[in-house]
Amino acid sequence: MELKEIGEFGLIELIKNKIAVKDKRVIVNIGDDAAILKSSANKVLIFTTDSLMEKVHFDLKYSSFEDAGWKSMAANLSDIAAVGGIPVAGLVSLGIPEKTKAENILKLYSGIKKLSSEFNCPIVGGDLFTSAGGLVITISLLGEVEKKLYKTRAGAKTGDLIYVTGDLGGSEFGLKYLKRCSGKRRMVITRSVITEKHLTPYPRIKEARFLVKNLKLTSMIDISDGLSSDLYHICEGSQKGALIYADKIPINSNIIKGCKLLNLSPLNTALSSGEEYELLFTLNPEEEKKLEKVSHGKFRVSMIGEIREEKAGVRIKSKDGRVRVLKKTGYIHF
Amino acid sequence: MELKEIGEFGLIELIKNKIAVKDKRVIVNIGDDAAILKSSANKVLIFTTDSLMEKVHFDLKYSSFEDAGWKSMAANLSDIAAVGGIPVAGLVSLGIPEKTKAENILKLYSGIKKLSSEFNCPIVGGDLFTSAGGLVITISLLGEVEKKLYKTRAGAKTGDLIYVTGDLGGSEFGLKYLKRCSGKRRMVITRSVITEKHLTPYPRIKEARFLVKNLKLTSMIDISDGLSSDLYHICEGSQKGALIYADKIPINSNIIKGCKLLNLSPLNTALSSGEEYELLFTLNPEEEKKLEKVSHGKFRVSMIGEIREEKAGVRIKSKDGRVRVLKKTGYIHF
Repeated sequence: MELKEIGEFGLIELIKNKIAVKDKRVIVNIGDDAAILKSSANKVLIFTTDSLMEKVHFDLKYSSFEDAGWKSMAANLSDIAAVGGIPVAGLVSLGIPEKTKAENILKLYSGIKKLSSEFNCPIVGGDLFTSAGGLVITISLLGEVEKKLYKTRAGAKTGDLIYVTGDLGGSEFGLKYLKRCSGKRRMVITRSVITEKHLTPYPRIKEARFLVKNLKLTSMIDISDGLSSDLYHICEGSQKGALIYADKIPINSNIIKGCKLLNLSPLNTALSSGEEYELLFTLNPEEEKKLEKVSHGKFRVSMIGEIREEKAGVRIKSKDGRVRVLKKTGYIHF
Repeated sequence: MELKEIGEFGLIELIKNKIAVKDKRVIVNIGDDAAILKSSANKVLIFTTDSLMEKVHFDLKYSSFEDAGWKSMAANLSDIAAVGGIPVAGLVSLGIPEKTKAENILKLYSGIKKLSSEFNCPIVGGDLFTSAGGLVITISLLGEVEKKLYKTRAGAKTGDLIYVTGDLGGSEFGLKYLKRCSGKRRMVITRSVITEKHLTPYPRIKEARFLVKNLKLTSMIDISDGLSSDLYHICEGSQKGALIYADKIPINSNIIKGCKLLNLSPLNTALSSGEEYELLFTLNPEEEKKLEKVSHGKFRVSMIGEIREEKAGVRIKSKDGRVRVLKKTGYIHF
């Protein structure tokens, strides 16, 4: 159905019916000027926003509307994970090109809803407008965290070990794979192992909560700009240097195979791949054993290096023992 | 300076220096994955977002970058006012076309900062991205309000009086005036009495706080879609009808003169003009005297009609005594 047929307020009704949920913390839900929510005693608030724009962050040639909604929500939830928090509620501001079908907008909200349901983060309001460019999705989230548990980029100490959850490279590889294939033939499988990290990344909320509750992390960030850039963010925030080991960076074997097929370096892909939404964190080496013990079998973490003095810079050691300055790679907007 | 010369992270630094302020409630400020804030005991949270897009909500032919920033902030603060709340903090997500000059982005933040300073609403984070369309400004605000004082669109009772703050019509008239003039000659004065409501509207935070603290309002909304549409929002939210009096709708005398020059109906302009950011509220008639007494000299309010039973519909009475159904006019996105 064309948007013009149902109109702005008609579309708002459809969206409300689709995503409004009852939640004991929501006092005033979607449909008023602002949402009204209860806050928790003994917790501090987390407030974050992230936008995705068509042709810049995603392309409807190979992302579905549902994927685009999912990814917008994932990017924002990942920022809540990065500080060790719990999501509370979200707002969606959506710029819609004139000729978009209403069904597609509802699919976009389906993608948002899947993650908002999974992480108990109801969408409590937002804004719709005609976009003079492509689709623009801005989500803002409110979260909360115990005052003693939140983490920032600052706080890493010399000698701390550097860890990363999951494996890296899949987002950038998936995008390159989709770009090359979409030109040649219609994609049949888009949700394969090698494209899902790009299309529907998974935010590490549960892993982050587990980590901050069980271990004394000294800093944490989510990998949204790329491992190299985000490691620099931790080092700059903590006024430290770092040494990481190339052969310890976790890369999925399918991504390694795929990179070889496309003539890409798996290591460089893993270092520069943004929108991974894995967690990068630092830990006092005394906590290493405890991490192994408590996280055993729950989720994958890899130790990839250690924090050094600031003057040592940020470096990477190759398998052959050579040490070089780590280049800040990854997507930069301008 | 071109954005490419200073880069994404360079621009973030400039913005941080420009707008980051110390605030006792802000625990983690701009520059981390998410902002962290203290919440107040005995208050509930307000959460709202609103986007402005170039060529849709404003045109850089006659709005300056500073105006665009100001207006984005005003639109969001007005939603906090609409529920009777106090702003706490904001996030700015900004989509920037590639060739924009860094200086202009800083001017946009100057506009945001003027209002954020005036209303103690520090900007604590955000997101920057390349826009494939025009400039896109999405602001999200966190606010708070005493649980007993917040207002919604629902709650108006039959017999309640309908009030509006300030005067109406200036936003739509200003836009029409700017559109007609900008084609003919370069605007010399853009901040005149007749264009300021369109370019730099003023959110009624202080007035709203005064009203909710001193009087028993039954419902409230801000006029962002237009008096007629927003009155319908109150009536639909409260399941009521209404009768308003054409000759009681406050219109600035300069706007009346301007409308005559441009051959526009002042009444229709006042009924359909959105982005006015005045408050529309309802009050038990027993509170009328008290309103006159306590608001005397503080700010202007006009009684424009009364709430009726739902079956009576939403109607307007002309000066000559004729009553007709009120048309929902104003800007609709699709």
